[in-house]
Amino acid sequence: MNVETISSAQNPRIKHLLALQQKSSLRREEGLFVVEGRRELEHCLHAGMQVECIYCLDETKTTELSKLSTDSTLYTLNSKLIRVTPNVYERIAYRGSTEGIIAVIRTPQPRTLESLLQLEGRGVNGKPLFIVLESVEKPGNLGAVLRSADAAQATGVIVCDPLTDLYNPNLIRSSIGAIFTVPTVACTSGQCIAFLKEHGIQILTAQLQDSHLYYDTPMAGPTAIVMGTESTGLTDVWRQAADAHIRIPMLGQLDSLNVSVSAAILLFEAVRQRQS
Amino acid sequence: MNVETISSAQNPRIKHLLALQQKSSLRREEGLFVVEGRRELEHCLHAGMQVECIYCLDETKTTELSKLSTDSTLYTLNSKLIRVTPNVYERIAYRGSTEGIIAVIRTPQPRTLESLLQLEGRGVNGKPLFIVLESVEKPGNLGAVLRSADAAQATGVIVCDPLTDLYNPNLIRSSIGAIFTVPTVACTSGQCIAFLKEHGIQILTAQLQDSHLYYDTPMAGPTAIVMGTESTGLTDVWRQAADAHIRIPMLGQLDSLNVSVSAAILLFEAVRQRQS
Repeated sequence: MNVETISSAQNPRIKHLLALQQKSSLRREEGLFVVEGRRELEHCLHAGMQVECIYCLDETKTTELSKLSTDSTLYTLNSKLIRVTPNVYERIAYRGSTEGIIAVIRTPQPRTLESLLQLEGRGVNGKPLFIVLESVEKPGNLGAVLRSADAAQATGVIVCDPLTDLYNPNLIRSSIGAIFTVPTVACTSGQCIAFLKEHGIQILTAQLQDSHLYYDTPMAGPTAIVMGTESTGLTDVWRQAADAHIRIPMLGQLDSLNVSVSAAILLFEAVRQRQS
Repeated sequence: MNVETISSAQNPRIKHLLALQQKSSLRREEGLFVVEGRRELEHCLHAGMQVECIYCLDETKTTELSKLSTDSTLYTLNSKLIRVTPNVYERIAYRGSTEGIIAVIRTPQPRTLESLLQLEGRGVNGKPLFIVLESVEKPGNLGAVLRSADAAQATGVIVCDPLTDLYNPNLIRSSIGAIFTVPTVACTSGQCIAFLKEHGIQILTAQLQDSHLYYDTPMAGPTAIVMGTESTGLTDVWRQAADAHIRIPMLGQLDSLNVSVSAAILLFEAVRQRQS
């Protein structure tokens, strides 16, 4: 197959790619985002997302594509392939990755809260298990939480009043592709609380004040674990909506854990209770 | 007090500071390392470490020192203070931090394995609880594990055959100072295994093959949880020394968790069992 090669970083397609990586407003406007790395792209394709274009560092990477796709989609993928020279790749690669593969993907239709309850085989015992993050600021933190949520097979991650978009390159990278494997919904805190209340899903807020130890709290029933930002914690609307407040005991001299670490501890306690 | 001001990044003291940040060989040779940030320095001073020199961005930071120290040490700290101008600070600040305080610290005598058993009030129920990391490559990962170990009040962290030094700036930063609150020993795998066996501390290796679910494994007795690198896992010497192999169930599509997340899940299961 005849594959186009781009050798200048001034090429309009390359400039467009760079802009998509940097500007959330452009990603939203055009309904496109950028995925870098073999594993990440693999999970993205597996989730059925639509590829606009794939940039590869060299021909050897094109054989990688056959591992990433079924026979029926391989032809389509190959037809969207563009080679780039090393100087161009260096410009478009995020954090100097050397995997040599970067794709532009069409943003899927946003998922609804209701759709999260139609998923089968998640939540370990079939009962919903959500992580809710309020006003998460750092894309890297949200990505790391998604990675923990994938491992614990959470039903989904709900991001309330987000300060980042779901297709930020830093988020995708730190999730190692879990943004494509974990059902994720962005909405307002009000919408989320109404949804959880309507469906009888208990709300457990992670906070220090007036709280129970997390492992003394039953989580085998339908459960949403709600976490705030590392800097300011949860807002009152969540504290008041809670069925219980839970805390991880901080036994040392430091006063907090990373949010993805906290999420993992709480999710795997739910897994333990559901599997025991 | 008359405080010296440095306004050129070419100043020999500034060049020396930069070299200490960058070169582990120089840190080892001179027995010095660099701490940046108020919280990190606070934990460092609280651990009784000896300050060689403190670089501050401006005078207002000198009032910060009074919060960091007891009355008896405040005079000593003030006497070691050097002001730097913003252009110099920008050069020496790691990752563009704006906290405005960077100190050169004398490396303490290395801790011995035996000394870990003389510490009181750690391990939740008084029984030793160690995290052992084999050949950890990324200083940031070791720092994040230390943060989890602080929260769970582990007796200590043992780093076997380390590929990083304990006073790497990235490690100190990602630990948020836990390198100063958690007793940490570097040694060979052989020394560590002999120590654990001699003191009847059970060895639980985190690995997928032939393993039990971690929450079905008793951890209330003296326990060392041993983890390998993210890339290659544990070596055979550890697998064979193990009393049991344990695993965190990976229920999603990704195949691993970050090592600090795994460490936190396992440590807090030990906490749960010890407090229940």
